[in-house]
Amino acid sequence: MKLLSETKTLTAAACNAQMELPLQSLVREIIDAATDHANALGFGYDRLLANGNAWVLSRLCVEMQRFPAVGDTYTLTTWIEATNRHFSTRNFEITDSNGTTLGHSRTVWAGIDIKTRRSVDLTGLQSLVDMSLDRQCPVAPPARLRFASRNPIVTPYTVQVSDIDSNRHLTTARYVELAVNCLSLDDYDRCFPGRFDISFMKECRFGEALDISHSLDGSTLDVAIANSAGETCCDARIILTER
Amino acid sequence: MKLLSETKTLTAAACNAQMELPLQSLVREIIDAATDHANALGFGYDRLLANGNAWVLSRLCVEMQRFPAVGDTYTLTTWIEATNRHFSTRNFEITDSNGTTLGHSRTVWAGIDIKTRRSVDLTGLQSLVDMSLDRQCPVAPPARLRFASRNPIVTPYTVQVSDIDSNRHLTTARYVELAVNCLSLDDYDRCFPGRFDISFMKECRFGEALDISHSLDGSTLDVAIANSAGETCCDARIILTER
Repeated sequence: MKLLSETKTLTAAACNAQMELPLQSLVREIIDAATDHANALGFGYDRLLANGNAWVLSRLCVEMQRFPAVGDTYTLTTWIEATNRHFSTRNFEITDSNGTTLGHSRTVWAGIDIKTRRSVDLTGLQSLVDMSLDRQCPVAPPARLRFASRNPIVTPYTVQVSDIDSNRHLTTARYVELAVNCLSLDDYDRCFPGRFDISFMKECRFGEALDISHSLDGSTLDVAIANSAGETCCDARIILTER
Repeated sequence: MKLLSETKTLTAAACNAQMELPLQSLVREIIDAATDHANALGFGYDRLLANGNAWVLSRLCVEMQRFPAVGDTYTLTTWIEATNRHFSTRNFEITDSNGTTLGHSRTVWAGIDIKTRRSVDLTGLQSLVDMSLDRQCPVAPPARLRFASRNPIVTPYTVQVSDIDSNRHLTTARYVELAVNCLSLDDYDRCFPGRFDISFMKECRFGEALDISHSLDGSTLDVAIANSAGETCCDARIILTER
């Protein structure tokens, strides 16, 4: 029970233009697997909500040697690395049907009081603390991105109905899409996102006017999403790997 | 084998702001179920591609009494209604865990030659013709929408990387999102899309500058997506039902 594995097959309908699993879909599946595991262990959204709390994703990274291609069967395995007062860290391994590693992900989650939006002490969830597993995850933790200055290329974006999740915020997979969309189809044909980091600072709501600023320097794409008050909502970085 | 059923449970992570299955996700699942059934019957994308052909969705409608809510288990059942030279029609019923009908969908598919983009004669696929099932689908066929004039409210949109599917066109679920996004969160809190129709005329590609024009007249939202040559790419209509 300390490990949860979910196996999927990539259909043509779920592929991107490169006939691979899109990064944003992988991130959605990572969050779904985290949700399923937390529910199975009895500290999912419902359990937290009963106490007026909710899980929020603080940081995430994904590092892939290769993305699943059309027709591939692949498995996501997730486990909890550790839990302290402020954060619970949950890792993932993505393997192909032979058990060969395709990549890893690390996620950092906080519990918050849904009224005050302040963090709650996670060590009160003893069953969560007890679920830590000493298993290797050989990739660097999610970077704490804080871009010193705004990136030079700025695209305005207004948050739409289809972007909003059950928390009434811009949904995580959509942040990933907004970052990916700073690339051209040519960039994506030439490279794949070998490493992706994202840090969340502030939630975006329906109708908010955002500035998505980015710079692409060699293989490094930096993206910052800021609101109209000039506050950074999230920072993301994609390191491109040549195909 | 003339019927395929797929059962799913709606997680909080997959909900919209109203804690329901989003219309665009339902349409994605409808297309996935169609794909799975066609593959199982031996005339999926792969089989057609071997002859240089591909399936394209021409029209779709969805009519729902109620959308699955968070935690609900629901089933999509699909079958082929009929196949003629030009089109194969495939229907869907969506039921809850008690077997109560939540809604229906009708889809109209064409086979095209991927080089010439011309339609191919589907009656050559005898095994497809033989799979027709005489089963009721008590909703009107997808409307042939041809909006006489442009709708008054126009929003520009440029096709992004994350919008592109394995055919290198704007993906169907994203057309649905672009239509849904003509609504406000207040509209969606007050109503749900009781009936949705969409007709595809022309494919949109990466980087294309589109005009999304819409009008909301009472409970009827009309949306037209046109390219910079002024050609209509698709027309969609949502009839809103008060909650």
